[in-house]
Amino acid sequence: MIPKQTVNMTDVARHSGVSIASVSRALRGEPGVSPTTRDRIMTAARELSYVVSPEASRLAGGATGRVGVVVPRIDAWFYSTVLAGIADEFDTVGTDLVLCTLPDSAARHRFFEALPLRRKVDAVVVVSLPLSARERTRIDQLGVPSVFVGGHHPGGNRSWIGIDDELAARQAVGHLIHIGHRDIAMIQAADDTDIPWATDQARISGFHRQIREAGLGDPTVVTVKWSIEGGSRGMEMLLSGPRLPTAVFCHSDEIALGALRTLRRAGVSVPQQISIIGVDDHPSADLNDLTTVAQPVRDQGQIAAREVLRHLVGEAAPVSAPNTDALTTLPTRLVIRGSTASPH
Amino acid sequence: MIPKQTVNMTDVARHSGVSIASVSRALRGEPGVSPTTRDRIMTAARELSYVVSPEASRLAGGATGRVGVVVPRIDAWFYSTVLAGIADEFDTVGTDLVLCTLPDSAARHRFFEALPLRRKVDAVVVVSLPLSARERTRIDQLGVPSVFVGGHHPGGNRSWIGIDDELAARQAVGHLIHIGHRDIAMIQAADDTDIPWATDQARISGFHRQIREAGLGDPTVVTVKWSIEGGSRGMEMLLSGPRLPTAVFCHSDEIALGALRTLRRAGVSVPQQISIIGVDDHPSADLNDLTTVAQPVRDQGQIAAREVLRHLVGEAAPVSAPNTDALTTLPTRLVIRGSTASPH
Repeated sequence: MIPKQTVNMTDVARHSGVSIASVSRALRGEPGVSPTTRDRIMTAARELSYVVSPEASRLAGGATGRVGVVVPRIDAWFYSTVLAGIADEFDTVGTDLVLCTLPDSAARHRFFEALPLRRKVDAVVVVSLPLSARERTRIDQLGVPSVFVGGHHPGGNRSWIGIDDELAARQAVGHLIHIGHRDIAMIQAADDTDIPWATDQARISGFHRQIREAGLGDPTVVTVKWSIEGGSRGMEMLLSGPRLPTAVFCHSDEIALGALRTLRRAGVSVPQQISIIGVDDHPSADLNDLTTVAQPVRDQGQIAAREVLRHLVGEAAPVSAPNTDALTTLPTRLVIRGSTASPH
Repeated sequence: MIPKQTVNMTDVARHSGVSIASVSRALRGEPGVSPTTRDRIMTAARELSYVVSPEASRLAGGATGRVGVVVPRIDAWFYSTVLAGIADEFDTVGTDLVLCTLPDSAARHRFFEALPLRRKVDAVVVVSLPLSARERTRIDQLGVPSVFVGGHHPGGNRSWIGIDDELAARQAVGHLIHIGHRDIAMIQAADDTDIPWATDQARISGFHRQIREAGLGDPTVVTVKWSIEGGSRGMEMLLSGPRLPTAVFCHSDEIALGALRTLRRAGVSVPQQISIIGVDDHPSADLNDLTTVAQPVRDQGQIAAREVLRHLVGEAAPVSAPNTDALTTLPTRLVIRGSTASPH
């Protein structure tokens, strides 16, 4: 469907020594490119006889009226809630939302190879995908503004919306320490992709830092898959150990919910014999009386949508320094329910 | 954005005495219209000087490559799971998914007034919206094939995918009767729109029919809002009554989960003192050991997507008789867990 061009924006970017996003901005007459850089880009484009595609001209003249949203999957609470926030905002201004899901590694591979959104959307929002450096570059190669939600990887000149995952972990573990726990384990979840996800790493390092700063010994950590099932498995592993910790920090509420199920089945009472805490404030956390650190999920979608719309009208906040990202960090907060109490 | 035309497809349909869908098919040269009807439509179009819009010509020539999906909201398990099924199928054939959510009555009103998807998509899938007759007509006026998921309203010449909601209710209540319950209440949920939703009605009538056929007396029914909170409220109402029923059929799993929470807080043991059953097989049903009637949700999305793609290539199954709908009914099945048992 996409006409082949011998020279593309990547060539212009390489020739002029700037990012593809800058080439895109310069060719579309958008702000955010210095006059000197713009001149260099225009010269490179002329020298390479770069032809702006008809679709691209249409973009320059106005817009497709569409923004792409890329999410790993939508049948999971976090993603569907972020998406709902984005959809709300787009609806109010009449922007069409083109949805791309990448439920497995084949779909993901296809997406980053073919970039099916190319020339079809004015901008993209990428929600909580653990992106490799190459994948981040491919998103840039869409040649349109992009905004990222969750799991910040420093890359430079990108807009990220998320929470401070290390702080969230510290709030959770801090609560356990504050009420007297000294023997705190973690059920940590690992994604099945090969790419280390920033969110995962930050929650793990937050846990270890808080434990270390409180002067507590080496904690027990078990690693499972990111799912309720994984949480159940993790708690079974802890129950098989020589001694049960008095409290468990779970990587997320879904992990914690699985852990609670195992404890119920094993006849271990919560919080009398063990305290459990998660991160998220999943709707089931309230239902199962789970103490957690809440993150504002719908808000992340809404703010990302507003940010991408600001990019489209050229009103996005300029990045403060070259090669840094524009980060928007939303606050998390401790929600104390019935699954945590002081140890006996 | 949409150029005004004095004559539109509705006029051609009225003039030729056929449905708008037939006009659309005839003008686009698609199968499913008899030669006589096609002639009548073409004559009407000529007499009215109906001009096919440039966008419509593009449709006739090929396709936008986009299909619209309309859902009430996506931050709820049922909708996000159907949507995931649709996205999967579209992804395999490279169809872009344009998402429209109608989270409140204002958004809904705007959508059916302005029809923002008009001329932007090749087809639409409408997921579980309780549609008024006028709204169903507005969907037809998009002039593209449409497929509906859930809550069948007989209207004629439309494709519907769903479960047999009356049967689902009968399976649930039948299980309670089978294990010996004679005093069965229902917590029924009502949508806050004014439009009676077929799904709601069918589950309610299935409940009453099963009770009547078993020769049981007039059951207690309480009505609440469609939410976990509503379920909690409903059980509070039952607990306030003169005598607790031995079993409760809940309109959905979310209602049942709310009911279970109230029972836990009230210290009433399940299933020893009361049995609880829902409909859906929500992920939290397993987590909370809730007996339920499972419906295949992702499948409904996948089948709807395949059906709409068949419409696009002109391969959709012809409707068996005029003014009837093409119905695809997926099976439901009883999943027995720990929340139901014989009464003492």
